[in-house]
Amino acid sequence: MAVSAKLQWVEGLKFSVQVGEGRKIELNSAEQMTEAFTPMELFLVALAGCTSMDLQWILTRERQEIEGLEISIQGTRREVDPRYYEKIDLHFLVRGKHVRRDAVERAIRLSQDEYCSVKAMLKDSVKVNITYTIAGDMKPEETFTYVPSAKTMKAAS
Amino acid sequence: MAVSAKLQWVEGLKFSVQVGEGRKIELNSAEQMTEAFTPMELFLVALAGCTSMDLQWILTRERQEIEGLEISIQGTRREVDPRYYEKIDLHFLVRGKHVRRDAVERAIRLSQDEYCSVKAMLKDSVKVNITYTIAGDMKPEETFTYVPSAKTMKAAS
Repeated sequence: MAVSAKLQWVEGLKFSVQVGEGRKIELNSAEQMTEAFTPMELFLVALAGCTSMDLQWILTRERQEIEGLEISIQGTRREVDPRYYEKIDLHFLVRGKHVRRDAVERAIRLSQDEYCSVKAMLKDSVKVNITYTIAGDMKPEETFTYVPSAKTMKAAS
Repeated sequence: MAVSAKLQWVEGLKFSVQVGEGRKIELNSAEQMTEAFTPMELFLVALAGCTSMDLQWILTRERQEIEGLEISIQGTRREVDPRYYEKIDLHFLVRGKHVRRDAVERAIRLSQDEYCSVKAMLKDSVKVNITYTIAGDMKPEETFTYVPSAKTMKAAS
């Protein structure tokens, strides 16, 4: 399956982008944000988005009653070129009735190890730290740290 | 430097995204495109965008008179999970007066090897094939294939 985009330089570091048959988005440098996005912002959105879609899809198949799913992602860039993310923090807030911790943990694991296409292209040196909070039952919210599977840990070493 | 985004599930695989302090973008699955983007589309835009900005910036510093810069990118996904891009084709069309081929080649090389933060996070197994066309002088357009530096080729093997 092929995915495509076309970019056209506008001025300075501003580019207009056409994705697929005509959806538009605008890129600019970090100093010139208005309605535009930086490439590194879109990269973070791509990574968070693919994992979030996996989670939503897997938890629904597992018959978990999800009422809300909120994701926050923060990437910390290196201070020297290339200024890639040396650390990415990803947090899922899962709201629902009787959502099981093991189901959430398993969904994250399946996404990280088997489904998320963006994650699969990342070098192991890009650390993705994942935490998740389960909320919505009568009991207080609880936050957990996702522990990568042995396979992932081995690959990262 | 930190970059951040928040995603909120809307319905199905649709998510609304807030980047930084409030810029909005919408994600959805490949089957549900209207104004939304897929994570894998945004990943391609991020990769093309960071290389394009590098090119624009470097060529300007090299005093090349760039009148136009158009970039097309196409990614071919694997057919099994994780369906990452097994091949990415990136093409630059550089229009300008007396644009030197060696300046373009060098700008691409600096971007690929030293500056492009998105490229720097990619596993070597994700092949990025780059071609470029120089246009705008009286002579006919010419298209060239960028040859990765030895360092890159070694890393990819």
